[in-house]
Amino acid sequence: MTDSTITAATNAAVIDRDRRSVFHSWSAQGSFGGLPIVGGDGTTVWDADGRSYLDLSSQLVNVNIGHQHPRVVEAIQRQAATLSTIAPAHANETRAHAAELILERAPEGFSKVFFTNGGADANENAIRLARLTTGREKVVSHYRSYHGNTGTAISATGDWRRMPNEYSRGHVHVFGPYLYRTEFWAATPEEEAERALRHLERTIQAEGPDTIAAVLLETIPGTAGVLVPPPGYLPGVRRIADRYGIVLILDEVMAGFARSGEWFAFDAFDVRPDLITFAKGVNSGYVPLGGVVISEEIARAFDDRIFPGGLTYSGHPLAAASAVATIQAMAEDGVVENARRIGGDVLGPRLTAMSAVAPVIGEVRGLGVFWAVELVADRETREAVSPAVVAAAKSALLERGVLGFFADNRLHVVPPAVITDDEAGRGLDAIEEVLVSIDPLA
Amino acid sequence: MTDSTITAATNAAVIDRDRRSVFHSWSAQGSFGGLPIVGGDGTTVWDADGRSYLDLSSQLVNVNIGHQHPRVVEAIQRQAATLSTIAPAHANETRAHAAELILERAPEGFSKVFFTNGGADANENAIRLARLTTGREKVVSHYRSYHGNTGTAISATGDWRRMPNEYSRGHVHVFGPYLYRTEFWAATPEEEAERALRHLERTIQAEGPDTIAAVLLETIPGTAGVLVPPPGYLPGVRRIADRYGIVLILDEVMAGFARSGEWFAFDAFDVRPDLITFAKGVNSGYVPLGGVVISEEIARAFDDRIFPGGLTYSGHPLAAASAVATIQAMAEDGVVENARRIGGDVLGPRLTAMSAVAPVIGEVRGLGVFWAVELVADRETREAVSPAVVAAAKSALLERGVLGFFADNRLHVVPPAVITDDEAGRGLDAIEEVLVSIDPLA
Repeated sequence: MTDSTITAATNAAVIDRDRRSVFHSWSAQGSFGGLPIVGGDGTTVWDADGRSYLDLSSQLVNVNIGHQHPRVVEAIQRQAATLSTIAPAHANETRAHAAELILERAPEGFSKVFFTNGGADANENAIRLARLTTGREKVVSHYRSYHGNTGTAISATGDWRRMPNEYSRGHVHVFGPYLYRTEFWAATPEEEAERALRHLERTIQAEGPDTIAAVLLETIPGTAGVLVPPPGYLPGVRRIADRYGIVLILDEVMAGFARSGEWFAFDAFDVRPDLITFAKGVNSGYVPLGGVVISEEIARAFDDRIFPGGLTYSGHPLAAASAVATIQAMAEDGVVENARRIGGDVLGPRLTAMSAVAPVIGEVRGLGVFWAVELVADRETREAVSPAVVAAAKSALLERGVLGFFADNRLHVVPPAVITDDEAGRGLDAIEEVLVSIDPLA
Repeated sequence: MTDSTITAATNAAVIDRDRRSVFHSWSAQGSFGGLPIVGGDGTTVWDADGRSYLDLSSQLVNVNIGHQHPRVVEAIQRQAATLSTIAPAHANETRAHAAELILERAPEGFSKVFFTNGGADANENAIRLARLTTGREKVVSHYRSYHGNTGTAISATGDWRRMPNEYSRGHVHVFGPYLYRTEFWAATPEEEAERALRHLERTIQAEGPDTIAAVLLETIPGTAGVLVPPPGYLPGVRRIADRYGIVLILDEVMAGFARSGEWFAFDAFDVRPDLITFAKGVNSGYVPLGGVVISEEIARAFDDRIFPGGLTYSGHPLAAASAVATIQAMAEDGVVENARRIGGDVLGPRLTAMSAVAPVIGEVRGLGVFWAVELVADRETREAVSPAVVAAAKSALLERGVLGFFADNRLHVVPPAVITDDEAGRGLDAIEEVLVSIDPLA
């Protein structure tokens, strides 16, 4: 077998080859039918048969800077030629540079970055830091949340993916604010925030505040439905954490690095965490990378005490080089500002307006390039559409050359943050055509 | 901050910059003193002041093909220019190619590869597969072992690193064979193997065989001391696993891909596992990558059933391209054969001969480019040398321009598998000088 086996194959050949040898995430292997993507540029990807798609998914909501950004590609190529890898026990200037650029974007009082391979081990290590500094065991997180797939991270996760994988102790789940499907009999965002805070604090009291090491929240729960927190919720969580000496970890794996129209999504919500976890957008996944931004107070606790955590590829130079280039390119190209503007001027208004013509739309939520459209069979009861309706919508979008991101009964509109008005307009036209044509009761 | 901040800095400047912003693995942050490595070539790396070192550590025992192999660098650069990343839900030919090359080196009956970001999540997912297919919870592993740093993997680990991190249930530990410090009052390798098997089987019986999902073992426990299993041990484990319907997972993260002078270390031990975990050597860590090789039987169980596991960077094209190039280069350059030969002809004989002139040597164990030298204060009692002796040996080697890998009271001689006779000779000369000069009782 040689390189020549990588050829200009057809879609069918690539899919067959992939399916024969590769075991796939979150799938029944027999039904795998992924698109054989062979290249990309900005918001566009194309398959082996040469068909192009507008990527409104950013893959797994991570390619924030778009596909194949020349500056990031060049940085990877240059670092590969210099030094691809080195053990974390040695010092490396590219790694330090990436840490500096991330710290510059964090609030005052954050002093160190611990690098990991992705978001799951970022959350694992943030939880470890919280447990070791507090001497407490439990972690409170939301039922509607996803924090990663390894032992501790999947037990902190709230959705169904936790259930077949829950072998870790010390996890407590609470309901978060989600007015459209309120768990608190609330009628307004203010009431939802206030009641969710009361529920959180009562749970902490009932568990025993001295047993709680951390509250771990996605700043904006992402795959759970782009659940933008109502005003007052996150500052209220901060006050509760302070009241009981609990570490506040904000999971910015999906929401950070331009996705929400901010460097960190919490910048829009008047709250300062103790630990920030990141991955995805930090380098758009060009090389596997994640990490934890650590407050000075927590970092200092390990000046003389050994931190009992680590991994072979922590602070990997190739990953660090791609993060440096991504952050610099985002800053110079105004990518964060573009995401904020296009969310406020184009995506939000047009998706909201679609509600008037597409009865299947129950609610539109979001900001930046981070939007969810709830598809409902009945606006009164808010009952979700059937999986068949979702599958049909996905296919119909694909036929129009658009990759959407579907989760449960929702279409998430999560394009790369570099998307232009024209591209957004084209995507929204396709979405409108598809949603208008749906019979919610089908 | 721009690229120009990456300059020809001095050692002191790089270390200072790294220490200010980066939080380090397994360290008290105040005492971090890593070498500022800025480049490498084969078995050599150099620091910012231009000093070169012979790398007998392979960093974290992972750069098996040596530093900056031109073919692997070129493959990364080419894939970066084509398509750096794509979601695991899409098909990708480079990913399929990497899976094929790995499967070609696995025994008959292995049909799929699940890709992860590293060794920890490889073991996490192997354990998940074992639990889901058996419907059982417990995992039996060795006290002297390391399986990674995330929730489940660190609880499966046997050494001290587990203790501050143990929040997962369902883990049982047993003693493995280690004749030099036998837990079984054994006198011969055969007796050690037989008694370790009896201990394993009695533990399984006492735990309840129907509760045991998997036995998870490093084929050759690595950081624990290159504990080469005695003849009969691994085949005996296989028989016990079969007797009780237990999945046998062999962790080849450190031992695999040329380290032991084999593609998979178990090839030398007449045993066939059900699941194989890998990372490190598969692409020498040029891009973060790990994975699980899955037997046909276990893979098929998920043809119609959803596998509840996954990660954003599973089957990452850049990582896959580096694995393809690494495996092809290893095959064409005869790297596995070189490792086997140099272990049998040079490293083993010379390290063993050193015992005659260096009283600090208690035992020499290993194969391929995977050797441990036990340093003892007293050959009779086998008492370990003090940490101060180990630190002095490490410094003395470094002064001679040699990077060793030290763990507890041991020097591990674990160079890249491409090492030449001359380079090995130079490294061994330095080791001999240092070990001969050590006063074991200092």
